[in-house]
Amino acid sequence: MGLNMTSLIAGAAGFIGSHLTDALLAAGHAVVGVDNLSLGSRKNLAHLEGHSNFQFVGADFSSPDETRAIFDRFAFDEVYHLVANSDIRKSSENPVIEYDNTLNTTYHILENMRRRGVKRLFFASSSAIYGEKTDLILTEETGPLTPVSYYGAAKLASEALISAYSHMNAMQSVLFRFPNVIGPRLTHGVVFDFIKKLRADPTVLEILGDGTQEKPYMHVSDLVEGILFAMKELNREAVNIYNIGVDSATSVREIADRVCSGMGLKDVQYRFTGGNIGWKGDVPRFRYDLSKIHAAGWKPRYTSGEAVMRTIRDNV
Amino acid sequence: MGLNMTSLIAGAAGFIGSHLTDALLAAGHAVVGVDNLSLGSRKNLAHLEGHSNFQFVGADFSSPDETRAIFDRFAFDEVYHLVANSDIRKSSENPVIEYDNTLNTTYHILENMRRRGVKRLFFASSSAIYGEKTDLILTEETGPLTPVSYYGAAKLASEALISAYSHMNAMQSVLFRFPNVIGPRLTHGVVFDFIKKLRADPTVLEILGDGTQEKPYMHVSDLVEGILFAMKELNREAVNIYNIGVDSATSVREIADRVCSGMGLKDVQYRFTGGNIGWKGDVPRFRYDLSKIHAAGWKPRYTSGEAVMRTIRDNV
Repeated sequence: MGLNMTSLIAGAAGFIGSHLTDALLAAGHAVVGVDNLSLGSRKNLAHLEGHSNFQFVGADFSSPDETRAIFDRFAFDEVYHLVANSDIRKSSENPVIEYDNTLNTTYHILENMRRRGVKRLFFASSSAIYGEKTDLILTEETGPLTPVSYYGAAKLASEALISAYSHMNAMQSVLFRFPNVIGPRLTHGVVFDFIKKLRADPTVLEILGDGTQEKPYMHVSDLVEGILFAMKELNREAVNIYNIGVDSATSVREIADRVCSGMGLKDVQYRFTGGNIGWKGDVPRFRYDLSKIHAAGWKPRYTSGEAVMRTIRDNV
Repeated sequence: MGLNMTSLIAGAAGFIGSHLTDALLAAGHAVVGVDNLSLGSRKNLAHLEGHSNFQFVGADFSSPDETRAIFDRFAFDEVYHLVANSDIRKSSENPVIEYDNTLNTTYHILENMRRRGVKRLFFASSSAIYGEKTDLILTEETGPLTPVSYYGAAKLASEALISAYSHMNAMQSVLFRFPNVIGPRLTHGVVFDFIKKLRADPTVLEILGDGTQEKPYMHVSDLVEGILFAMKELNREAVNIYNIGVDSATSVREIADRVCSGMGLKDVQYRFTGGNIGWKGDVPRFRYDLSKIHAAGWKPRYTSGEAVMRTIRDNV
């Protein structure tokens, strides 16, 4: 493994995909990074221009033909599937976005892995598959799985397909149920939005909801290390499911305070839109039981608060 | 409710769909029965020819255009979604069958319910969503959900979509996780196969697996009563999930013995193909905890053994 492994990163030009590309190259993999550049950006991969082990291909996995062409052009040893509509708020108005970009992409990737005999898959799942279970500490066994957003539905539907394809085709898959992930190259989410809004108007900050929404934020460097660890150590079963995250959490109000102070702003007026969720389909809070991944021998470096502070520092 | 309710039955010409059509008409609903007749048959609805409250329309819910046309032509109060590839063995060779017929049909139905404001949905889910959990007694909360067949994956993916659409659009849905269902008009499955094989050759019976696979079999008349009960009484939440079934179970070997005796055959030679599953993606046994539906006030009339015996009687 390592030096002679050819890895496909689907969604390589996105926020997390670009960091994963860096990490796999550093580990000696040959990486083919594919992205349709609808949410991702070539800028995120600009520093890899001319890298001998890296190749970028523009293609859209929601197209069966383009997916087939990618799998015919290269012989992959493994696939990292990070393609999704990452803007949950946007798709809450239009579920077709999730069906095409988050679910159908999974299906086309799986069909081509089956056809070409590719046996190793990493999948970026999400806490959104659990639905609104604010009173529970979520383990990998928690059920029933009742997503409240189209995004969560498409992620759970993807998990379902991956499970069957893994069992039917002797594949090994790792499913990481991501929390909120932040860090350099962030393109959406509350930290990004606050910075953008305060750049436009440093006197007033509109905050979706009442500011009490509280979630664990994980630094992308930790997530990417966890992914490499998992693909090396945790792919024993056909389907290996892990909650991934940090034990701490940060409220939206606290993020607002930290962004203001990180940007050197004082007396910013907060305007809350009200209610305990940011938008329809949002989940106000969740908490993970992380003992499974901890017991496997892996822990993140940064707490939620540290991840927020580093992200503000790197993005302002 | 009842007399003035217009109900869509998607998959009305199928085995279960046709029995549900009878039951809803008996309860005073106006029923529009839709089927693409690929697995279902007009014969199953022939006795309803000329019924003033029933209309049959040939259409395919895997087509977005045909689905749209159905929802534009009628104003439905509720939808019973029973469309699926019901032949799990067949799709184990070709997952596309499940993606098109079991999952995409759900998506097109949900999109049109959203567009037209239809608020009540019944969905035929399956024990196959749990995957191979032979050592557990399955409750509605059991997880993780790791289907091993493409059929189970498409059913779980459908549940995921229904959950999000229900929460996002103030719909109420009832999800019944069916066991094996048998009775008059059966078109597939072990009881049907054995009768068919013994009609062709009454001296030898090929049995897939080693005969020890043991599952609960539910009589279709019980299932249909349960569905009517659920839609009347159990649709309080956005998503109402129930295991539905019988507490008893029957082995494949026992079914073989009962079919032979029901057909008056003696000294039939059994030829076992071996292994503890009938085909790849089959689950050798499962057991439901049914306390949730029992506590809600509903129980089936027939045991698994009684259902098998009645089915043999009605089909030979």
